[in-house]
Amino acid sequence: MATAAAERLRAELPQTGPEARRMIRTGGFVGPTSGFAPGNVQGNLAILPAALATDFLRFCQLNPKPCPLLGVGAPGDWRLPQLADDLDIRTDLPRYRVFRRGECIDEPTDIRGYWREDLVTFAIGCSFSFEEALLQEGIELRHITQGTTVPMWRTSIATTPAGPFHGPLVVSMRPLKPPDAIRAIQITTRFPAVHGAPVHIGKPELIGIADITRPDYGEPAVPRDDELPVFWACGVTPQAVIAAAKPEFCITHYPGCMLVTDRRNTEFAIM
Amino acid sequence: MATAAAERLRAELPQTGPEARRMIRTGGFVGPTSGFAPGNVQGNLAILPAALATDFLRFCQLNPKPCPLLGVGAPGDWRLPQLADDLDIRTDLPRYRVFRRGECIDEPTDIRGYWREDLVTFAIGCSFSFEEALLQEGIELRHITQGTTVPMWRTSIATTPAGPFHGPLVVSMRPLKPPDAIRAIQITTRFPAVHGAPVHIGKPELIGIADITRPDYGEPAVPRDDELPVFWACGVTPQAVIAAAKPEFCITHYPGCMLVTDRRNTEFAIM
Repeated sequence: MATAAAERLRAELPQTGPEARRMIRTGGFVGPTSGFAPGNVQGNLAILPAALATDFLRFCQLNPKPCPLLGVGAPGDWRLPQLADDLDIRTDLPRYRVFRRGECIDEPTDIRGYWREDLVTFAIGCSFSFEEALLQEGIELRHITQGTTVPMWRTSIATTPAGPFHGPLVVSMRPLKPPDAIRAIQITTRFPAVHGAPVHIGKPELIGIADITRPDYGEPAVPRDDELPVFWACGVTPQAVIAAAKPEFCITHYPGCMLVTDRRNTEFAIM
Repeated sequence: MATAAAERLRAELPQTGPEARRMIRTGGFVGPTSGFAPGNVQGNLAILPAALATDFLRFCQLNPKPCPLLGVGAPGDWRLPQLADDLDIRTDLPRYRVFRRGECIDEPTDIRGYWREDLVTFAIGCSFSFEEALLQEGIELRHITQGTTVPMWRTSIATTPAGPFHGPLVVSMRPLKPPDAIRAIQITTRFPAVHGAPVHIGKPELIGIADITRPDYGEPAVPRDDELPVFWACGVTPQAVIAAAKPEFCITHYPGCMLVTDRRNTEFAIM
């Protein structure tokens, strides 16, 4: 199973949330956070001006499967104590993307220079959490075996809009044998805070996916004859929706460079 | 939805377990029990000589998905007080089948004349219970809409044998749209005592089903282009396994003429 992932996990990766954030904050680490603090929740990041925050918060609450909120900061506050006591959202991710009116203007490793008193931080659940639960149950995840990024598509399913935020649901796909697909539905149902159960299974054409071999994002992981494609709502959805809304200013995490929290994935299981 | 079923439900069917059994026991009712005592568990029946009972009990415990045991009687005892206080298994089903060495020798409406001091009663969960839960969630079940018997197949999946009892897993199939299939997996997972979650989805050829339009038992309910076939372990499995074992003597319910208990389907939900 997952040779590449196993290799990374055995290495000298930080084993706890505080260690991970210290290595990023003061150690100059700028790579992906996969394998950091095993068992801890990692999150997608979106930072928006307060003028847009209410609409975005509504958008997340209207679309909980692609946008499961782990935490929301107070305006101007760079802390999220419900996710980690020592967290400084301006320094504790390896790399960020800064946008003005939809255009990426910088990819810094620290956003203290961009901080404003009206910025609101959103931490959004990510599929790392449920993938850990699937792997622990012995379910093979092809993109991890291959060492590639999970394939993702924009679908014909519309999100529920809120203010300027609207657009298609983006899904990630994992090919699974039918009994593993059933088990994966059961397991991910337990994790509604990190995308939860799949949104679709087995018939990509019904959700506007014309070619299962060519994802819109990520890399291919084509189902074999004895597998079904299983589709989960994806945290790229809010990123795409924010990009399309072209807010005057926003900051997100750099792909793969996630927020590492002190919360445990198992805390987010509903049973 | 389900015109035929709705018509039957609105009629003067018995609404409680005691009413249902009284109507069968003393009222001369000999038809199917579908719609009797809505919300109550109905069960498959198998009655075997004590010499075979231990092996059959082991078979059920080794194969809980097709053979979920609701109750087992003491040798010679025609009561099952854990399912209904007043239950007399010899008179309270509308019709039975009596077998000698695998051959059906009678289809009586009362088995008091066949009762022996060594007979052991097995009540086994049936899909009526989880189908009720699916209908209550607004999921259309094609065979109910059509007013037909659910389609069933012998599969290439072997049950785990015990003594003389062995044979293929029999499954029932319900065609569902992908989001309904996901929801149905979640709902039926809650009911392990009545077959539980599906055993397969979407690829009939992987479990030895060559033609989805031609069931081995029941009537066709062919998936449409926007539907997946979803397969559940079926209570016909133990019936087929008993028939193949050709016990010197056994009694089963007549198809559709089930044991109506006083237990509620909701009692069997694990959450």
